[in-house]
Formats: sequence, structure tokens, C-alpha cells
Amino acid sequence: MMLEQAVPDPVYCDNPKLAERDHLTKQQIGVTAEGPMRLRMEKFIKEQQQEIVQALEKLDGGKFRRDEWQREEGGGGITCVLQDGNVFEKAGVGVSVVYGSLPKPAIAKMRANHKTLHLDDNINSLPFFATGLSMVLHPKNPMAPTVHLNYRYFETSHPDGTPHAWWFGGGCDLTPSYLLEEDAVHFHKTIKDVCDAHDKTYYPRFKKWCDEYFYNKHRGECRGVGGIFFDDLDYTENDRESSFAFVQDCLRAFLPSYMPIIERRKDMPFTEAEKDWQQIRRGKYVEFNLVHDRGTAFGLNTPGSRVESILMSLPLTATWKYMHEPEPNSREQQLIDVLRAPKDWV
Amino acid sequence: MMLEQAVPDPVYCDNPKLAERDHLTKQQIGVTAEGPMRLRMEKFIKEQQQEIVQALEKLDGGKFRRDEWQREEGGGGITCVLQDGNVFEKAGVGVSVVYGSLPKPAIAKMRANHKTLHLDDNINSLPFFATGLSMVLHPKNPMAPTVHLNYRYFETSHPDGTPHAWWFGGGCDLTPSYLLEEDAVHFHKTIKDVCDAHDKTYYPRFKKWCDEYFYNKHRGECRGVGGIFFDDLDYTENDRESSFAFVQDCLRAFLPSYMPIIERRKDMPFTEAEKDWQQIRRGKYVEFNLVHDRGTAFGLNTPGSRVESILMSLPLTATWKYMHEPEPNSREQQLIDVLRAPKDWV
Repeated sequence: MMLEQAVPDPVYCDNPKLAERDHLTKQQIGVTAEGPMRLRMEKFIKEQQQEIVQALEKLDGGKFRRDEWQREEGGGGITCVLQDGNVFEKAGVGVSVVYGSLPKPAIAKMRANHKTLHLDDNINSLPFFATGLSMVLHPKNPMAPTVHLNYRYFETSHPDGTPHAWWFGGGCDLTPSYLLEEDAVHFHKTIKDVCDAHDKTYYPRFKKWCDEYFYNKHRGECRGVGGIFFDDLDYTENDRESSFAFVQDCLRAFLPSYMPIIERRKDMPFTEAEKDWQQIRRGKYVEFNLVHDRGTAFGLNTPGSRVESILMSLPLTATWKYMHEPEPNSREQQLIDVLRAPKDWV
Repeated sequence: MMLEQAVPDPVYCDNPKLAERDHLTKQQIGVTAEGPMRLRMEKFIKEQQQEIVQALEKLDGGKFRRDEWQREEGGGGITCVLQDGNVFEKAGVGVSVVYGSLPKPAIAKMRANHKTLHLDDNINSLPFFATGLSMVLHPKNPMAPTVHLNYRYFETSHPDGTPHAWWFGGGCDLTPSYLLEEDAVHFHKTIKDVCDAHDKTYYPRFKKWCDEYFYNKHRGECRGVGGIFFDDLDYTENDRESSFAFVQDCLRAFLPSYMPIIERRKDMPFTEAEKDWQQIRRGKYVEFNLVHDRGTAFGLNTPGSRVESILMSLPLTATWKYMHEPEPNSREQQLIDVLRAPKDWV
């Protein structure tokens, strides 16, 4: 789910005018509540990135490497990665901003619901803006779950610069190697509370969407115990301010949703066999990200993208054992059972 | 390149008649030079599988696990895997046979050159046969290269059973972690000799095709030092007997092309840092197979395929380190240089 990090240099014509305008606005007026959503979302996720990185550094004791990168034609990003830390095998927290112009089929691919795009047959490409925060944390301890999060904002405009469409997307999901039910319950409950405060239909819809999206079809298994996922939060759902408020609350809920879990799992004792099982589960994580994830595939197949920012989502290490099957009634089998039949956690 | 292992149960209607007919032929007449190419190719690759497995067991000292599996609607396969051996981290040698019926777009996807398929607009699907041998060997020693090989035969018939099209495909390629030029030269020379004996244009064309196909586009790197690759050896190239003879010679050349290399590398001394580099290269191998390889993607996205036979190609272990760059002028950088600018080895 790193669509926003697909930086499509050679294929797409670019959109420097909007980028320049936004740059000037930032310099002369700053980012205000009256300013463009593009800048407000960018500012918000950069603040959140800093806050999350600080909290994770405090927990881990290690330092994130911070790479700030520019897109020649407008935009850029900040990729923060902590590798081989005390708590985390690999932790990536990235922000990216893209100003460009996208051919219609590429735009259509970036949405689940194409209906609201109203793509006229006589338009070949659209000026396009995307910004988002992506995060994947792979802890060392096999009792501590991997967590993924992504929140993003898209805008298209007509070739003359007038607004065309906007939408928010994102979600978060938890991927344990061992099922510790209270972790799944806490994670889901925290997210559900945020959803319910905005729209009572969000959690049930987005929880289901998450189970369906993060699904390793070829294995017949969900990637993990889920969370929420939504791809098309646009005017048909709610006005833009309300949706921004929802996405802000979702992102602010990340630390409360995950920190209590990692704190109680990071120092749990484990055996070599349990570590091996984690490595096998890591292999399935790689399979999902490289085979099924639309954003990763889109990014990797696009010349000019910053590959290392897209693939920071991969674990430090993974294993593939031919025909590995857990013992019946084992804790390993218990995980597989729940991945094959997603549960309601709250 | 494991197209032949995509066993597409629920999506595709099946082709039991041909399967039954072939089964009867095998029982009553046996496989003769006058019999169908389907049976001759199947018999040949099964013999080769046995021969290769025996040679690798002798080298490694370990035993392959042998799984014979059936396709309910016709066909099946034999998957042989040696895992965590003395010489090989993981070695998979698989044969598969598929009788089915494929929708037109799926058939078109299985070929590079669709022109000779002559797919009429009023035909929605075609009875389809595929058989092939696939092999990937990942040695433990980082000085010993990974090798991949696949040879396959396809046939389609009209819905009334009359022949429609046939073609052979396949190739082999070498993926070292450290560039040992004499290995690349020996591997290419052995293959070139086979090619030249059949058609002087084969090696230069198929060598180039291999460099282009086994290419990690998103990294701007070839997977390894190449070999040969061809996808459409049909009547426009040569008659069927000649092409079968070529494919047979290619497959028979595998042991002579690889055994001298693995024998001289398997016991070479290596450092921990060199093992780490091998693990990073393994990660790129996984990326190619899961992101770019048409056969793997096709198989994994097809419900009902034998996933463990497709993914036996993945290494036992792999690593992803964020922004890992070899030292300038190091042996690691020397490999990268040749992956970015493929060389002529003979």
C-alpha cells in the first residue's frame, strides 16, 4: 500500500505549475486551515512521522536513519528506517509527496471505485497529486506482531488547473506470528473507537475490506488479523473536512493501538523453533507485498520510482521451507486457522 | 518460468478426453517414437528428472523428498526437493503435466509471440496440454552460483480435438553472488555448443532474450549472468522433431554445464560477510520471481495451483537491507556492474 511512493518519472508528464504554486504558498503564507488540502495533509503526516519515529526510537533505543529525497519535477519525501535495532528487526516510516500527470488507466488503477472519477474519453491524462505516510514495523521477538499503516490523499485536476477529484485512502493491519488474542482485540478496539466517532458504518465496512484486501489468495490465508482498509473516501462518502478529520484521528490512534502491544511482547521469552516460525511467516509477508499488493507492484513496475522506499516494507530476513506444515493443534496451527477464517475481534 | 505448474482447476474447464486417450495409449502401446509428442516429452523429462536428482544426491550426500501428485481432471506431477543439504540450501526439480482447457486471454499470456496462435474471435477457450521440467538449485556456499532451468512443451487443439498449435519453450540461467568469470564462460560455452549444433542463430538470439527476460526492471539489474531463454519454438522456427531434438540436447547438457562449477565451488572458504552478501542477492532473486516472472505470477494468481511446487524456486533464506550498497571496486560491486551491463561470455 505504497501507491504514493510510486514516483513515475519517465512515463508521466509532470505537473510543475501546481508544485511551484504550492511551494510559493508554503513560503509566503505557510500552511493554514484555509490553505489547500495538499499542504495540510503533507504537514500533518510529516508531524506524525516525527512523533512516531521519536516514540519508536525511545522504545527501541536505536536510531532511525533519515533520508530526505527530492523529486526533480515536484515533490519528494522523507524515508526513516531503523534496521537491526533492539526491538525492531526493521522499522520503516516514510512520507512522500508526488506532483505529476497520470495517464487515465494509471489513475483508474489507483482506485477501487472508478465511478466517481468521471474520466472523459477525450482526456488522456490528468494532473495528479498524491501524498501519504507509510509504515511497516517488523519486531525481532516472534511474540510481537508486525504492523503496517498507510494513510494517503489524492487529488486530480483538469488540464486547465481546475479541481477534478479528491479522495483519501488508507488503513492499518496487524500481522502476528503467534495469535495473542488480547493484542488483536486491543488493536481492533482502538481503531473501532476512532471509526465509530466519525461514522458507525466505517468500522464494519473497513474491517471487512481489510480482511479482503490483505489476503494471500494463493495461500488461502489473510496476511494477518486485519484492521481497517479503505480506498475511496471521497465526496460520495463525506465532505473533505470530515474525511480529513477522520484520517487524522486514525493516524493519531496508531501509537495507542500498537505501543501497549509491543511493550508487553518485546521481551517475552521465545525458543529457536518459535523464531523459525516467525521467519516462515515473514516469507508469507513478502509474498503478499510482492505478488498481491497493488501499490508495491505499481511502484516497482514504474520506471524512476524510489525502490528502496517502496521495499522498506520487506522484513530484514525471511525463510521459505518446502511443504512446511504446523503440528495439528499447535499454536502455529491456531494462527493458520484464524488466517483462514477471519474473526470479529470486538 | 513455471507456467506448466499453473494448474488452473476452478477457472478452466478441463480436457479429460485427451487425458484419458493418452492414458490408454501409455497402458496399451507405451510411449514410442511414433506416439504423440505429449507422451514423448513427458517420458523424456521424467527420465531426465531422475537422472539429475540422482547426480545431485550423489554430489550433496542428502536425499530429495519426492512428492508425486495428481490433477483430478488429468495430469499431475512429481516434485523433488532437497532442503538444507550439505551442498544445497534448497534444490527443487519438478515435472508437471496439465490437461485442461484455457480461456483465450490465458493462452495469449503464455506466449511471447501470439501471432502464430490464430485465435479466432468466435472461440472462447481451447483444449490445452502442457508439460515441463523446472529446476532451481540454491547452493549454500556463496561462491557457488544458483542455477535455474526450465524446458516445456505446449499444445492446443480445436474444441473438436483436431490439432491447433504446438510450441516448445525454456532455457537456463546462472545467478552467482560473486562473479567467477570462468564459471560464466563454462556455462555459456556448454549451452552455445548445443545451440550451434542445431541452429547457429539460436545462441545469440536466445542469450539476448535471456538477458532481457531475467531482468529485475525495478533494480535496473539482470538476475544473473544469463544463459538462454526462448518462448516460442514453433513451426515458424523449425519442424517439431527438430525442436524436440534441440530441447532434448539442451536438457541433457544441464549436468555438464553445472556440475563442474558446483564441484569446484562447493567447498571454497568464505567469510560471514560473503554469506551476508549472498543473502542480499537471494532477496533480489525472490523479487524477480515474485514480481516479474510471468509463470510464477500466473500460477499464484490461478486458484487451485500447487503453490508449493511453484514456490520451490524460492531460496531457503533471504535478506533485505535498506539502502545496502557495496563498497566501490569491491567484488560485490563487480557483480553489480556485470548485472547492469550484460557481457558476451563466449
